[in-house]
Amino acid sequence: MGKTAHELFLGQSASFTKTMTEADAILFSGISGDLNPVHINQSYAEQSMFKNRIVHGALISSLFSTVLGMYLPGNGTIYLEQDSRFTKPVYLNDTITATVTVEEIILEKNRVKLTTEATNQKGETVVKGYAIVLAPR
Amino acid sequence: MGKTAHELFLGQSASFTKTMTEADAILFSGISGDLNPVHINQSYAEQSMFKNRIVHGALISSLFSTVLGMYLPGNGTIYLEQDSRFTKPVYLNDTITATVTVEEIILEKNRVKLTTEATNQKGETVVKGYAIVLAPR
Amino acid sequence: MGKTAHELFLGQSASFTKTMTEADAILFSGISGDLNPVHINQSYAEQSMFKNRIVHGALISSLFSTVLGMYLPGNGTIYLEQDSRFTKPVYLNDTITATVTVEEIILEKNRVKLTTEATNQKGETVVKGYAIVLAPR
Amino acid sequence: MGKTAHELFLGQSASFTKTMTEADAILFSGISGDLNPVHINQSYAEQSMFKNRIVHGALISSLFSTVLGMYLPGNGTIYLEQDSRFTKPVYLNDTITATVTVEEIILEKNRVKLTTEATNQKGETVVKGYAIVLAPR
Repeated sequence: MGKTAHELFLGQSASFTKTMTEADAILFSGISGDLNPVHINQSYAEQSMFKNRIVHGALISSLFSTVLGMYLPGNGTIYLEQDSRFTKPVYLNDTITATVTVEEIILEKNRVKLTTEATNQKGETVVKGYAIVLAPR
Repeated sequence: MGKTAHELFLGQSASFTKTMTEADAILFSGISGDLNPVHINQSYAEQSMFKNRIVHGALISSLFSTVLGMYLPGNGTIYLEQDSRFTKPVYLNDTITATVTVEEIILEKNRVKLTTEATNQKGETVVKGYAIVLAPR
Repeated sequence: MGKTAHELFLGQSASFTKTMTEADAILFSGISGDLNPVHINQSYAEQSMFKNRIVHGALISSLFSTVLGMYLPGNGTIYLEQDSRFTKPVYLNDTITATVTVEEIILEKNRVKLTTEATNQKGETVVKGYAIVLAPR
Repeated sequence: MGKTAHELFLGQSASFTKTMTEADAILFSGISGDLNPVHINQSYAEQSMFKNRIVHGALISSLFSTVLGMYLPGNGTIYLEQDSRFTKPVYLNDTITATVTVEEIILEKNRVKLTTEATNQKGETVVKGYAIVLAPR
């Protein structure tokens, strides 16, 4: 079972890191239906402002759900809201670290706000925002 | 090529519909690393408040990216931000319609704000929020 | 190594059988880009003439390539042509047997024509046609 | 809904482009059962006449189904027949454009014949043939 609101503290954080491979992008295209050519058409991507195929931002943002539901607060967490700003493109084979940090705990409502940030292997921020969850009871 | 900011108008909308199957949830667990038992452990899920395995909210939210990048505005759209509130659980085999609707067009910045809403086959809202994008040029 | 044209004889046949699951259809949608709603939208499929989601005919036809390249003639076969007529829909979880049968051997050109037929678990023909290959040397 | 036979005209065409990655070939091997070493065994492929692993011709041919069912004629199309001649190998990471062009419309039977051609990023034809479909009503 994950941590209850009483077990959390401000500044507490947890991370998950994964290399986002071509296989991940292909599978994600299929299950989300997002066949945007910038993800699946190398010739198009090379002509685009990105110069190469990029990984879906929505998949990168999904890594926050992984951290929230598995590590902090962990199992039993109810996901209420995710806000994600996409600040830099993620390329195939970038290694992304998604980090969530407790920012606010509203004990009487059992609500927790966490900042969410994803960085690539160079330390650049690629997605930034926040999540609101109900902590496990 | 997708629609430029000048070709968009307030209230314009587009949708994409997909049944969210067990295979989708399993594949998404693998590529996102989100192995929360509420998605992959039937025994746990039956004991949880959801009473059954649910589909990842982050995958449902991803359907907005599909509509934005493929249909409205379409190819060439740059995804700046997604805010999603998860209002109801999505169960395996629910058929989800993701709809985006143009809410605000800031021509001088080429920015467009769209409301984003996902509904299930019963017409219930399961995810609600907004997206901010740069329109194709 | 597969069978050379000299080792083949008229009427010789080989088969491969596979249950076509929801996971197969979902993966195939992603890698082919074929997100036709009759494959991925249960609500749409129920309203369609098929009354349920169906498996992509192109995936069923692909089973012939499996038999030709792996069993008859086998490794080293060069696939020149496939003609497939789709005679009945294939539903999720149907078990399909793809059979190829040697129909004509043109020794001087090393070419072989085989009839190709796929049947479901009820023995109904779902795809019918022919393949032309170069036999392994 | 797709285009009815009355809305189609001779010479009308539509395309879909996708880079055929290693992940696509691996997944296709799994769902079709086509584990021909020329697709999955790099050592074998290098010794073969192809000199490198190639993508399954049946997967390339499947891209025609994508165009027919999603774009031209579009949703509601019934796929009756596909004839495909494999004229050149497709290598991993080739970017393939599948194009269908209306060749014949038989209004009284609602049947449409389309030529189908797939080309690689160099403009070389890799698969060529035709499809016969029933147009959406």
